[in-house]
Amino acid sequence: MASAATGAAKPGLLLLRRTDATFTAALRARFRVLDFYASGAPLRAFLTAAAAEPDPPRAALVVAGGAILVDAAFLDAVPSLGCVVTTGAGVDHVDLAQCAGRGVVVAGAGEIFSVDVADHAVGLLIGVLRRLAAAGRYVRAGLWPAQGDYRLTSKLSGKRVGIIGLGSIGSQIAKRLQAFGCAISYHSRAPKASVPYRYFPDVHALAADSDALIVACALNDATRRIVGRRVLDALGPDGVLVNIARGGNVDEQELVAALQDGRIAGAGLDVFQNEPHVPPELRDMDNVVLTAHEAVSTEESRADLQELMIGNLEAFFAGKPLLTPVLRP
Amino acid sequence: MASAATGAAKPGLLLLRRTDATFTAALRARFRVLDFYASGAPLRAFLTAAAAEPDPPRAALVVAGGAILVDAAFLDAVPSLGCVVTTGAGVDHVDLAQCAGRGVVVAGAGEIFSVDVADHAVGLLIGVLRRLAAAGRYVRAGLWPAQGDYRLTSKLSGKRVGIIGLGSIGSQIAKRLQAFGCAISYHSRAPKASVPYRYFPDVHALAADSDALIVACALNDATRRIVGRRVLDALGPDGVLVNIARGGNVDEQELVAALQDGRIAGAGLDVFQNEPHVPPELRDMDNVVLTAHEAVSTEESRADLQELMIGNLEAFFAGKPLLTPVLRP
Repeated sequence: MASAATGAAKPGLLLLRRTDATFTAALRARFRVLDFYASGAPLRAFLTAAAAEPDPPRAALVVAGGAILVDAAFLDAVPSLGCVVTTGAGVDHVDLAQCAGRGVVVAGAGEIFSVDVADHAVGLLIGVLRRLAAAGRYVRAGLWPAQGDYRLTSKLSGKRVGIIGLGSIGSQIAKRLQAFGCAISYHSRAPKASVPYRYFPDVHALAADSDALIVACALNDATRRIVGRRVLDALGPDGVLVNIARGGNVDEQELVAALQDGRIAGAGLDVFQNEPHVPPELRDMDNVVLTAHEAVSTEESRADLQELMIGNLEAFFAGKPLLTPVLRP
Repeated sequence: MASAATGAAKPGLLLLRRTDATFTAALRARFRVLDFYASGAPLRAFLTAAAAEPDPPRAALVVAGGAILVDAAFLDAVPSLGCVVTTGAGVDHVDLAQCAGRGVVVAGAGEIFSVDVADHAVGLLIGVLRRLAAAGRYVRAGLWPAQGDYRLTSKLSGKRVGIIGLGSIGSQIAKRLQAFGCAISYHSRAPKASVPYRYFPDVHALAADSDALIVACALNDATRRIVGRRVLDALGPDGVLVNIARGGNVDEQELVAALQDGRIAGAGLDVFQNEPHVPPELRDMDNVVLTAHEAVSTEESRADLQELMIGNLEAFFAGKPLLTPVLRP
């Protein structure tokens, strides 16, 4: 591990994500970076070697949506760890209970991503109702002069929108859609104080009362496949689904079947069960808007996030409270 | 004209648009319909024959965006006309001055379309900033697993949005984008009382102070090509243009050149200079979102509109005020 030989006075950092040159330089200026992807080693060997160093790393920088899970085995391999900094809007790739049990603190992205994800969700909703992507393909293929006006689409204003999960992202979505004249309802573990939206303790009832259903919850045991066949059928043949949460929140096979059978009208999807793989059936559907798990990926947020990651690491090494701690659910 | 032979007691109506079966039946139940497209005759011959009937038609139902202009020649051909009902969000296909000079009243779509057009404008803006359509093509082409994450995009929240034209549509756009945390400014002939947005008497200055420029004005002599090279250059290499007004509001050749040169960052376009023809250069650009003049085309609005058209015609024939009169600008 070449990086371990230099800058011994700097605190050690396990780097388990790919970074651009600017951010890498910013990290190396502050930390002794043990770079997994640069090492070429298998994960377990990399972690074991890092743990065996004279001054083993006390912090790790990880990424959501990758293959690396911060689970018991990971934490066992590097007992020196005291802090995990991650950057997902969700933290389903970090076992918070295992971390808490070992006194490992976890920092997340805070609310940096909330507005981008909410913007993206609204974009997907307008996209699927107004068929923007399919209309674009129609124009680009030169079909407008040949086949005439594009088909009628579905109005957004006035639609009943059900949001699953009214956290930071769900609240931002609700705020936006209120301005479009949508009627907002939501489902979450418990009703939120002081929000003007209708609460449904049961997600099936929410779907039955919604024209559009937006999945905006964290992925955990209570929300895995929270949208399955029964909920999709409650949403019904005129209903559309938007998912900007996690692929695991939706039973993807049931979703494909519901779209194929016309049991729902369409879907706007940024996340999938087995990313980067998207079911080929979806890729051929005109009533589906697809993006590549990019709801958080704006230039502006990326810059803010890099600053926040360094801020959290510096706070940890200085013995101060994390800027954006993730609490156990 | 077969239809003229039946229902002589019903008032005559010139039908200068294509209609679906349901709406055609609803019209025929109320009016003696003289159907241009069913007649197969050239326009001038059709109008002359209609005017020569014993009970010549006093009202005409026309469509925006088609080849038929209600101009002096049209009005001269059917001097019996007292009412023109049209359905565009804009009425640049009707010569309002010529109508007024002959005492011909004009009914439009009122504000039926405003929310749909505003929804569409926001969809195009999110689409171009977040590159939703291009990302969709990336996913559909199977490039996500092959080439990795899609590129970073541009944040909507916090952007400075300049709106050209703060009528019914522009106001609805502003209301929506405020909920996204955008800073709204506008240009119109005169500042509007009691709106909280910053007013720019000069469109060039508005563009220079905006990250995104949305064209939402009527098309008239003052607004034809209101967005030309100078305004595009003021918008600048990080700026995006959205046009949901009329193709004629933008100098399309200059827009293509600005996009090709990277002098602006992107565009979301529902309208074009020579519809249904879209410049082929635009059809190949990934930083452009294209739709087929469909901002008004939702199932819901189409139904509302058919009701409104009949309501205006019935009001006219009953000697009552039109429901949604178009006033001279």
